[in-house]
Order: sequence, then C-alpha cells, then structure tokens
Amino acid sequence: MGAGNQQERLDTNWVVGFVDGEGCFHVAINKLPKMSLGWQVLPEFRVVQHQRDEGTLHQIREFFGLGVVTRNHGDRMEFRARGMENLNKIIEFFKKHPFKTSAKQRSFEQFCQVIKMMDNKEHLTREGLDKIASIAAEMNRKPRLKYLESSETIRQTSHEGSGL
Amino acid sequence: MGAGNQQERLDTNWVVGFVDGEGCFHVAINKLPKMSLGWQVLPEFRVVQHQRDEGTLHQIREFFGLGVVTRNHGDRMEFRARGMENLNKIIEFFKKHPFKTSAKQRSFEQFCQVIKMMDNKEHLTREGLDKIASIAAEMNRKPRLKYLESSETIRQTSHEGSGL
Repeated sequence: MGAGNQQERLDTNWVVGFVDGEGCFHVAINKLPKMSLGWQVLPEFRVVQHQRDEGTLHQIREFFGLGVVTRNHGDRMEFRARGMENLNKIIEFFKKHPFKTSAKQRSFEQFCQVIKMMDNKEHLTREGLDKIASIAAEMNRKPRLKYLESSETIRQTSHEGSGL
Repeated sequence: MGAGNQQERLDTNWVVGFVDGEGCFHVAINKLPKMSLGWQVLPEFRVVQHQRDEGTLHQIREFFGLGVVTRNHGDRMEFRARGMENLNKIIEFFKKHPFKTSAKQRSFEQFCQVIKMMDNKEHLTREGLDKIASIAAEMNRKPRLKYLESSETIRQTSHEGSGL
C-alpha cells in the first residue's frame, strides 16, 4: 500500500495537492530560424522528481492519459506534457480543480492566457509574441529569456516606442 | 473558489499530495547542558511556503487542528508541529493516508521510528541517542549533526568500539 504502488490509480485531489507544490507551468521562447518571426513558443507542463520516484511520475502520466516521463537533468526525472491538444486537456482539469496556493494558481492563469493566445495564432504576430514573452518572463522562476534580450527585439521595441 | 480562500476546509487527499511534495519530517539534536546527556532531541514536522501563501499554511494548521504558522527564514513562512502529542496525531493521520512518493514515505517511516523511541524514553540513554542521531543524519537533507561531530560522541563511540 502507499508508496511505490504503480497499479493504484491516483486520487484527483492528491494530484492537485502534489502539483500545487511540485508542478511547473513553463513557457520557453526558442530561436528557430524556420519560424516566420524566427522564434518558437514552447509551452509545457512538468512535474520533476528524483529518479527514485519515477514510479510516481508514471502514475501521473497514467492519471492524465497523456505526456511522457523522461530525464530532466542528472538524477532527476520529469513528467512532461507538450502540444496544444494535451495542454488544453491539462488546463481543463485544473480549471475544474483549482489550486489552493495563490502562487501556483497565478502561474496557471498566466499559462492559460498564453495557450489561449496561441489557440488564436497570436504568437505568429510580433505584437502577440512580445506579449507572450512578457508573460513568460513573469511566470518562469529564472526569467532568462533570450528573446527579450535579442537585439532584434530591442530594436523592434524601441522603434515602437514601448517597453515590455 | 480556489487559491487564497481561507474559509474552505482542505480536502484530505489534497493535504497528502501537498505534503508529499512540500512537507518535511525533521529531527534536530541540539546541545543543551541541562539535559542529562547534554543533548536535546527535537523532532518536528513542517511545511514551508513563500509568505504570499501564508494563507495555505493557516488552512493546513486548521486542518490538523494543531501547530503554529511562523517565519521560517527571509520571505518564507512555515507551518510547524512539535511536541509528542501533536506529532503522534500527525503520524496517525499519515499512517491512515500514506504518501505516494517513496522518498517521503521513507523519511516518514524513519520519523515514526524516532518518535516511537522517544515515546519509550530511549533518547535519554546514550545508546538510544546514538541510534536516533544516525537515523536523523539519514533523514535530514543536509546531514550536519553537531552531535555526531562532537568529541564527546566520538570518544564515547570509539570507547564502545562501534561505529555509527
């Protein structure tokens, strides 16, 4: 019973509690020349654990019925969901079952905002990409966004006479 | 609804999930000359959050009906339970509702072992204190136990001809 039993289906409220502490909504903006604006927006939802608890990550994957369990870094593994269809399912779940900590609820709402903009193809316009970049910089714990530091963005922004 | 609502009672499985990620079972061994062996064993259960989520910590305090919410360090606050009566109630709860991660379940079981030894007054004997110190060193993430480094302990241990 309890720890390490991979057969048992996780309880909904346990998942919300665990993700409230350990989950991460993240939006990366990566340089990708083949994209029309030269940058790719990559939103993802992940839960990172030490590799000894890879079993729990597989249970989370089974619970949502989507995503992958893969190496994060060193001895850490992660459950990860990418792609608009998967992320919209994750969003639907956490809208039905809101977080209790304001920190997680806030980053979730910012994530929803980005996904909604992407659903509307706004990330393919300069204005939309700028807005997504400023939301992402606020969301991510270590706000190092190459997009915001790129000379192209700075030129564009100062040309428009508006800050981010 | 959701984040920041202090009126709402927390769900049992949410608490287990949140503590599975964010909770900490800790055993300190502090130098205290008035104790017969010169050391005090101080077990505690805590959940640390950024101060913006102090509300969640108060909800956890209300959920268990014991403990305090106090400053941890800098901008972090903690829910904390100490004392044998409180800790035995916490143990009873998590025995009924086991953790899903093996990491948390393991440190919980080690904590139970220490509390059981203290219930039996074993921490008042040199042999019991040595055993508690070795369990505590394994449990705590940063195993800096002054007790284990003290010349008194080293002398005692080498006198007995046994390692920790």
